[in-house]
Amino acid sequence: MSRKLWEGRFRGKTSRFLEEFTASIKSDARMYREDIEGSIAHVRMLRRQGIITAQDEKKIERGLREIMKEISKGKLDLDPSSEDIHMYVEKVLHEKIGDVAGKLHTARSRNDQVATDLRLHLARAGDDIAGLIEKLQRSIAETAHRNRSVVMPAYTHLQRAQAVLFAHHFLAYHEMLSRDRERFCQTRERILILPLGSAACTGTSFSIDRDFVKRELGFRKITENSVDAVSDRDFALEFLFNCSVLMMHLSRMCEEIVIWTSTEFGFLDLPDELCTGSSIMPQKKNPDMAELVRAKTGRAYGHLISLLTVMKGLPLSYNRDLQEDKEPVFDTIDTVVGSLRAVELMVSGMKLNEEKLSKGLEEGFLTATDLADYLAAKKIPFRKAHEMTGQIVQYSVERGKRLDELTLKELKGFSALIEKDVFLHLSPERSVRNKDVPGGTAPGRVTRRLKKALRKSD
Amino acid sequence: MSRKLWEGRFRGKTSRFLEEFTASIKSDARMYREDIEGSIAHVRMLRRQGIITAQDEKKIERGLREIMKEISKGKLDLDPSSEDIHMYVEKVLHEKIGDVAGKLHTARSRNDQVATDLRLHLARAGDDIAGLIEKLQRSIAETAHRNRSVVMPAYTHLQRAQAVLFAHHFLAYHEMLSRDRERFCQTRERILILPLGSAACTGTSFSIDRDFVKRELGFRKITENSVDAVSDRDFALEFLFNCSVLMMHLSRMCEEIVIWTSTEFGFLDLPDELCTGSSIMPQKKNPDMAELVRAKTGRAYGHLISLLTVMKGLPLSYNRDLQEDKEPVFDTIDTVVGSLRAVELMVSGMKLNEEKLSKGLEEGFLTATDLADYLAAKKIPFRKAHEMTGQIVQYSVERGKRLDELTLKELKGFSALIEKDVFLHLSPERSVRNKDVPGGTAPGRVTRRLKKALRKSD
Amino acid sequence: MSRKLWEGRFRGKTSRFLEEFTASIKSDARMYREDIEGSIAHVRMLRRQGIITAQDEKKIERGLREIMKEISKGKLDLDPSSEDIHMYVEKVLHEKIGDVAGKLHTARSRNDQVATDLRLHLARAGDDIAGLIEKLQRSIAETAHRNRSVVMPAYTHLQRAQAVLFAHHFLAYHEMLSRDRERFCQTRERILILPLGSAACTGTSFSIDRDFVKRELGFRKITENSVDAVSDRDFALEFLFNCSVLMMHLSRMCEEIVIWTSTEFGFLDLPDELCTGSSIMPQKKNPDMAELVRAKTGRAYGHLISLLTVMKGLPLSYNRDLQEDKEPVFDTIDTVVGSLRAVELMVSGMKLNEEKLSKGLEEGFLTATDLADYLAAKKIPFRKAHEMTGQIVQYSVERGKRLDELTLKELKGFSALIEKDVFLHLSPERSVRNKDVPGGTAPGRVTRRLKKALRKSD
Amino acid sequence: MSRKLWEGRFRGKTSRFLEEFTASIKSDARMYREDIEGSIAHVRMLRRQGIITAQDEKKIERGLREIMKEISKGKLDLDPSSEDIHMYVEKVLHEKIGDVAGKLHTARSRNDQVATDLRLHLARAGDDIAGLIEKLQRSIAETAHRNRSVVMPAYTHLQRAQAVLFAHHFLAYHEMLSRDRERFCQTRERILILPLGSAACTGTSFSIDRDFVKRELGFRKITENSVDAVSDRDFALEFLFNCSVLMMHLSRMCEEIVIWTSTEFGFLDLPDELCTGSSIMPQKKNPDMAELVRAKTGRAYGHLISLLTVMKGLPLSYNRDLQEDKEPVFDTIDTVVGSLRAVELMVSGMKLNEEKLSKGLEEGFLTATDLADYLAAKKIPFRKAHEMTGQIVQYSVERGKRLDELTLKELKGFSALIEKDVFLHLSPERSVRNKDVPGGTAPGRVTRRLKKALRKSD
Repeated sequence: MSRKLWEGRFRGKTSRFLEEFTASIKSDARMYREDIEGSIAHVRMLRRQGIITAQDEKKIERGLREIMKEISKGKLDLDPSSEDIHMYVEKVLHEKIGDVAGKLHTARSRNDQVATDLRLHLARAGDDIAGLIEKLQRSIAETAHRNRSVVMPAYTHLQRAQAVLFAHHFLAYHEMLSRDRERFCQTRERILILPLGSAACTGTSFSIDRDFVKRELGFRKITENSVDAVSDRDFALEFLFNCSVLMMHLSRMCEEIVIWTSTEFGFLDLPDELCTGSSIMPQKKNPDMAELVRAKTGRAYGHLISLLTVMKGLPLSYNRDLQEDKEPVFDTIDTVVGSLRAVELMVSGMKLNEEKLSKGLEEGFLTATDLADYLAAKKIPFRKAHEMTGQIVQYSVERGKRLDELTLKELKGFSALIEKDVFLHLSPERSVRNKDVPGGTAPGRVTRRLKKALRKSD
Repeated sequence: MSRKLWEGRFRGKTSRFLEEFTASIKSDARMYREDIEGSIAHVRMLRRQGIITAQDEKKIERGLREIMKEISKGKLDLDPSSEDIHMYVEKVLHEKIGDVAGKLHTARSRNDQVATDLRLHLARAGDDIAGLIEKLQRSIAETAHRNRSVVMPAYTHLQRAQAVLFAHHFLAYHEMLSRDRERFCQTRERILILPLGSAACTGTSFSIDRDFVKRELGFRKITENSVDAVSDRDFALEFLFNCSVLMMHLSRMCEEIVIWTSTEFGFLDLPDELCTGSSIMPQKKNPDMAELVRAKTGRAYGHLISLLTVMKGLPLSYNRDLQEDKEPVFDTIDTVVGSLRAVELMVSGMKLNEEKLSKGLEEGFLTATDLADYLAAKKIPFRKAHEMTGQIVQYSVERGKRLDELTLKELKGFSALIEKDVFLHLSPERSVRNKDVPGGTAPGRVTRRLKKALRKSD
Repeated sequence: MSRKLWEGRFRGKTSRFLEEFTASIKSDARMYREDIEGSIAHVRMLRRQGIITAQDEKKIERGLREIMKEISKGKLDLDPSSEDIHMYVEKVLHEKIGDVAGKLHTARSRNDQVATDLRLHLARAGDDIAGLIEKLQRSIAETAHRNRSVVMPAYTHLQRAQAVLFAHHFLAYHEMLSRDRERFCQTRERILILPLGSAACTGTSFSIDRDFVKRELGFRKITENSVDAVSDRDFALEFLFNCSVLMMHLSRMCEEIVIWTSTEFGFLDLPDELCTGSSIMPQKKNPDMAELVRAKTGRAYGHLISLLTVMKGLPLSYNRDLQEDKEPVFDTIDTVVGSLRAVELMVSGMKLNEEKLSKGLEEGFLTATDLADYLAAKKIPFRKAHEMTGQIVQYSVERGKRLDELTLKELKGFSALIEKDVFLHLSPERSVRNKDVPGGTAPGRVTRRLKKALRKSD
Repeated sequence: MSRKLWEGRFRGKTSRFLEEFTASIKSDARMYREDIEGSIAHVRMLRRQGIITAQDEKKIERGLREIMKEISKGKLDLDPSSEDIHMYVEKVLHEKIGDVAGKLHTARSRNDQVATDLRLHLARAGDDIAGLIEKLQRSIAETAHRNRSVVMPAYTHLQRAQAVLFAHHFLAYHEMLSRDRERFCQTRERILILPLGSAACTGTSFSIDRDFVKRELGFRKITENSVDAVSDRDFALEFLFNCSVLMMHLSRMCEEIVIWTSTEFGFLDLPDELCTGSSIMPQKKNPDMAELVRAKTGRAYGHLISLLTVMKGLPLSYNRDLQEDKEPVFDTIDTVVGSLRAVELMVSGMKLNEEKLSKGLEEGFLTATDLADYLAAKKIPFRKAHEMTGQIVQYSVERGKRLDELTLKELKGFSALIEKDVFLHLSPERSVRNKDVPGGTAPGRVTRRLKKALRKSD
């Protein structure tokens, strides 16, 4: 059985190069567990349906379990001359139990088998990722909680805009990650639809029980069209897209980490263990992990485009092009898992520099909006109030004063409606407290969301 | 009020070029309806909360409704010197009702306003698209039903593989489109989360009622973090991704249409109205629409990458970069809507060439698998059965015979287990009937799915 | 002639939707000048070769020149029912001069015509872009020259690393742009290869003179294979790639502008005219142009992917898919032209804040490398010297001292080899002067490169 | 020296995960040769400049040569705890020759070192690829020559359009590949610009001789700005783009191979060795290699987008993000090299089915254009001639005749200008011969180009 399994018809010999060029075993070997579990479920079903005998099933299952154990212990060398993990497992099984191994492939094809393996693998990877997202969310909530009283500037256009609780700003990432988890969760339902039983592309003439296999493997549904079942990679594309958006979120946080750890901002300090130094500049403490995560976003985007390109304009049903689905997906899994861990380490280890943060509140007229709102509340049309505030800020800039350093007289020069109570709106702390709307930065609101976030991840 | 609304502080004049370069009105004008509806809901809420008077609200709402009517009738020239549709509407409102117009912007910012408009617009576009997908699905089901008895070759690797019902093959696209609809439907829930009330990025100090606005506009939830709310474009990315996968599906069907309308395949004929001729080769009948849809897939992919690129590494909260979300999204909507209509026209108008299709069944040993299955059912291990079938096919090729033209004697030369009943498995029609498993091509199975498909789209 | 030109064979009527869906006139109208110039060169050649009479040529040329004038003056409404600009021009020509207009299309096809038009258009756009790049380079050189004595921190990992001349740092962009120009220049040679004469795909049986047309239109060569000539869009892909890299370079500068104009860095001030304010925060001065250019990078990337997707797996020769080449290319041209102008305005208007920049030199141990080099020059193996410097920096951090505030005694505590001359290496100015290698930041080196840069763009 | 080289300042321990997450040795180990050659050139220069002694240089060079030999013989295990190949080599060198190894890194940084290594590696990979392109071009020319008299249909829109020499059609790929080679050749010049000597980002204070190193390593120029030199990855982007376009070209040929080897077209037969069978359909002969090459185009596109994403918006100078340049580049090299070999095997082994090809000429009115040209040559305006031809074709379709089966009388019914000589234009062979323009398919033209192509690759 060392010949290629489909060599029956061919007279010539498969060239060595073809073997390497077309093989996928290097990458798909990581699905060995799913492949073997799928095969076991398949033969159990074949026995239940009377397609193979109980004795044959036993032999095959025992053989497969041995192989799984041996691979997981590193005892088996993955033979690079095997085309893929499916062929490899079958070959080893044949060496172990002889010709009866040939019954394993009854009523299925590699087309439905590989789709099943990949779906199972992605469902598990998705669960791992969802777990890591949750862990990161907990760290975000804890770090936010640890620094719950810190007020800092909120930025738009990287310009100081208003005063905000650090916890509120940081929980924005918690929100993003909740959406990420929701997406992985919904994609999971579309991943766990069993294609096995579609055979090459039209189904099989054996009287199989697809629902049994579905239950054995933990799938949710079975595919309803065999042609689609062997041609479809939507689930892998969705997975890659979810990973791309997740990496994009992480890249935003990492960009902030890079900016905030600059000497100029100085908002943040990362533990030494998570930074690297320079080979030539010993004083440097570089946020390499943040930079790497930011950059690895490119991988996720690239792999998404890669598979989208593969799928474009592909006629039905199975084409060998589909084999190119695995490497982008696997490398993306590794990238995302590593990045989530890296970011979680940074988040749980980061230390805020409160002095720098509060210094950022002093300059920048962060309460100008509050002043405009104050004026608008006095029934000045908002646009007018806005314009007036602009003039007051301009006046302050020219005199080198902060807004709360202006006298009431100076302020009244702009509008007689301004009263002493205006000063209740010109401090950052007060400004933060005033934003007391759902989703706003008022401490009470943030505390409630923090509680929820901390409870959720218990 | 012809000055830029934020010019208060600036002394210099905004250069003409800056005006054009930074304006988005050319593209965002198409959201005028959503912008005005959002504003009406906002002022109603302001009145309910006592932030503006009933009288002011009335004036503003009446003015806004007038503007909506005038724009929809093409009576208003969109002023290119307006920065965006929001500023334009406010400017015209000011011309109509004077200074009270300035109260419209109380307790909101363009940051939350534009996010609201875009979400509303995308929700509606998504509904339109879902409707068109459903229409296309109905056409697919009808065309499949019209040709329900046609048997044709199923292809893998563009090589004839097995016999299949055309209806079964074609319903594969129905499946893909169901997934597309499901995705749009799930994304809709994440689109319809109201950001209004987040103001610039931290919330507002006015005592607003976000839930009221949510109900008025038909949103499902309100955003829970103001910083995230103005920075988030996940919903637009999801929308673009869903469109990319949908276009990919259409590109696969169009590729098949192009191949099938070639003289060599000749499976399919499109109505003249849907084809174009050549300016130099008058005999040509080109499937241009299929080619164009196939190509337009590139647009969807490109726009997805475009927005992913914009978002990568963007620090919080709002940055002007986010303005670049609109053109990719809008052009994608137009592309998808046009492509769905084009494909629907092709599907409902296509005529199968049954002669050519059935001729494709005669050559190609399409029932070789059935023969292998027959042997396996005789308890020959599948791999062995497979190999044996290979030899029989090779033997037939050499003698220029089809499988069902071999004599029983010839067949028995390969295995004594072969009996007369083997011939029950060697005709394409029988092969199709034998694939009687869930998702398989057996006529009974296909009929049931057809019925469901036709009912569903009623 | 109002019927579609290829309608001879078709009985049915082209549906209205098909007309709109397949038309490209909205986008390709901008090539009217190239289309008409190409036609004039073509008919001149036809006359020279005796294929049409001198009289016919005259009529046609005169008609075409009239059309060009009328379009450029906005006198002609581009008829949306025309399929493309080529058909439109021919239709108007027919209205002007009657049936003789029909001779214009002798010995050519739209396949070679549209490729010719697009190449001519891209060659000109490329020249415009190259001109704008040069202008920007001059502004960079001038701004560098204006600030030639400013020393600032050089950053790696956004951490202060060493001292550098601002001019040296800024000229890095001059280098990038030189590569951009070189690429556009090389692509130009591949753009200006004339496909006209390839007709539909195999050439023409008329005895045409392709070299004459080449010279008339300013092409450099003629294509050597007609099948390739009508199928090839490499030149457009190259153009899009060059634009993508150029936009990437601009995005890097814009990122620096955004970071440098933050209050925390404060290195840079942009003129008011180039900034926008906030509708709700009057004190803000946002670097919107920099943000928009940064974001528009996404467009260029997206359009590149779009056309790459179109071309993937397209069989020869001409396919209608190729029509989808134009919008990505045209929008990219507009994006790049606008972005180059925007960046040029920012560069020529930017003002450095020398106080902030020099303050950045004081902290951060920017001369640590110089200290390590000093030690290495004393024959301490570099790695050892590096480690030793690390310890000295650590010592300084703990004592809150700068390197040049350590005493010789303290320094000698780390190595007896350290002498008084060490202080000659610990000031930023000295450090800059010491980097006196080709490509280094020493003032003499920079001055020479500045001179060259200023001369070059004269 | 087992501690990280930059650990001097840090008190904590680099976590194990950080080590793995930030390490690049798995991918950059393949540059070991370039790294060591670069180091040897560097130390020779250091000695020539008197920065290190001749004795030290000798020791270091001897050590480095030993390491190179050992790695190339597989004797050294690449230590995964080393950060990258540079650190690994230095560590092993230290084990071999002791502290003097520390002098190797004098006057350079990893920032300029890694850029140098990558450039050298890409220059070599580019040369390999150019060589393989040339080999493929020779195979194309030979296959075209071998089948030089075969006439076949030329396709537009995958519809038969005109008659063409197979050799002419196939040489279109020769043209594409010539452009590919030209691009690699031009990129080579921009790759071979030496960044070494730029150190971390501002240059070095040692008196180095960059031109000497340039000559030693075969670079063409030295970089002119140290900040740019360590930040620039344009050369890698160009390389990835060239590979993307090359893969796109191959994908087009592979698409044609897939279509042409379908039973319906049947134009082409590939050697058995280059095809695979089906595990369940023994009669199948699948063009897997063509499918895989077509699909692998996605990898090249994806890796291009990946690096473009990394570079977008990155501030100067070196950032750790740049480390993510290597994997996309290396995987692209492997993909392109394998794909070129695979396509070359298919091209040199393909066999045309002349019967099928010439049958394709009989139907389809491939000489309709010739008829239109014939009429136009009779001074009927081309558009009129075109319309008339359309009517003649329609007439023939209705009577089930080919154009050359019409009688002169029937033809004269359409125009009295038609004479007996019209039949000289209605056979495919004659049509091919008539396309006697530069770039056209006339046999004489094709023969000349073939000769040139065969000579060129000698």
